[in-house]
Amino acid sequence: MHVVVNAAMSADGKLSTRERTQIVISGEADFDRVDRLRADSDAIVVGVGTVLADDPSLTVTADALRDTRIESDRPANPARVVADSRARTPVDASVLDDAAETYVLVSEAAPVDRRSALADRGATLITAGADRVDLLRAFAALQEAGFRDVMVEGGGELIFSLFDAGLVDELITYVGSTVFGGRDAPTLADGEGFVTGFPSLSLSSVERLDDGVVLSWTVDR
Amino acid sequence: MHVVVNAAMSADGKLSTRERTQIVISGEADFDRVDRLRADSDAIVVGVGTVLADDPSLTVTADALRDTRIESDRPANPARVVADSRARTPVDASVLDDAAETYVLVSEAAPVDRRSALADRGATLITAGADRVDLLRAFAALQEAGFRDVMVEGGGELIFSLFDAGLVDELITYVGSTVFGGRDAPTLADGEGFVTGFPSLSLSSVERLDDGVVLSWTVDR
Repeated sequence: MHVVVNAAMSADGKLSTRERTQIVISGEADFDRVDRLRADSDAIVVGVGTVLADDPSLTVTADALRDTRIESDRPANPARVVADSRARTPVDASVLDDAAETYVLVSEAAPVDRRSALADRGATLITAGADRVDLLRAFAALQEAGFRDVMVEGGGELIFSLFDAGLVDELITYVGSTVFGGRDAPTLADGEGFVTGFPSLSLSSVERLDDGVVLSWTVDR
Repeated sequence: MHVVVNAAMSADGKLSTRERTQIVISGEADFDRVDRLRADSDAIVVGVGTVLADDPSLTVTADALRDTRIESDRPANPARVVADSRARTPVDASVLDDAAETYVLVSEAAPVDRRSALADRGATLITAGADRVDLLRAFAALQEAGFRDVMVEGGGELIFSLFDAGLVDELITYVGSTVFGGRDAPTLADGEGFVTGFPSLSLSSVERLDDGVVLSWTVDR
């Protein structure tokens, strides 16, 4: 399995403002890049915080990209995966529409009624971990389900947890031409934070795009 | 006056870990770049948090750069400026040594005994603002003192306040090849954060250096 984290951040490393308002950081060219990356993926993973804040559909926008997927016997859109320890994904969330398969990664602490509500909406539930999703086990289950190229779109809590679990192979950040500021604003990697054993990256490419720059890093093993 | 903010951050926009431990983010080539930038400056500004955490001297390291300054009738090192609302700079701080002039920007809330202790150590005090340093007024005083090229080295609280005051002309970030993570780790721009009126930047240059990349932005007016 190959896990790529992709996210747009302000020049000071924030995913959004302290009010968690979604502000457009990149532009058309970057949207197209992200759409191609989605189309190349088997599954798109987000944390439940992103679902609650932004209600994304996580589908491929360009018809041509979806057509190419279909021609190669793949579903029109990659599967959506929500890391959601307590099964808080709303039943009317866009990720639960019928545009693609949806997986919800829950912990054993997720209430049974919430789990069955999500299952009723067609989601496949993967249970791993007591209080929080055990990402190593959950991603192993995704691999068993046949997913090879996995793209993670945020938010910062999930991204930190994935780095912490050693699951990230590649990090791609679009660095935008603005400053959000805010000691409480969500950053690219939140969570507890590392104090030792920092992930080591190698810069694989630097590309100016729209008014910012795309930095692609591989994670050293 | 031309104000350049220069800081090294992890790939996720952090200046240090959540424990505020100083971790080396860049390498030799970037140290040299920062040293040249210091040598080209009339004053180096930091927040008192940086003084308390790192005790930097803020002097120019390379003999040749100091010699060049002296040959052109400038002091060997640029002046040091600490933004320090409550005058908390310790009397034994490296910024108070005799390697360069030192200014401390305080507010009217700074205790008189602390102010006189700093004055006794040779610092020039600039008082502006009731509870917190009024940066607009304090920087106007620095300009009157003859400082034209001013470099700001952090931390994130000061950098946000300077953006908020509209005082930043240029932002240079070294983006390093590691991830610190941590929702409580210091970021490039902390403070309250913007929710509207975000600073608009233009990317002036992108340069790969050591294992990371230097992004230079100008602030749009």
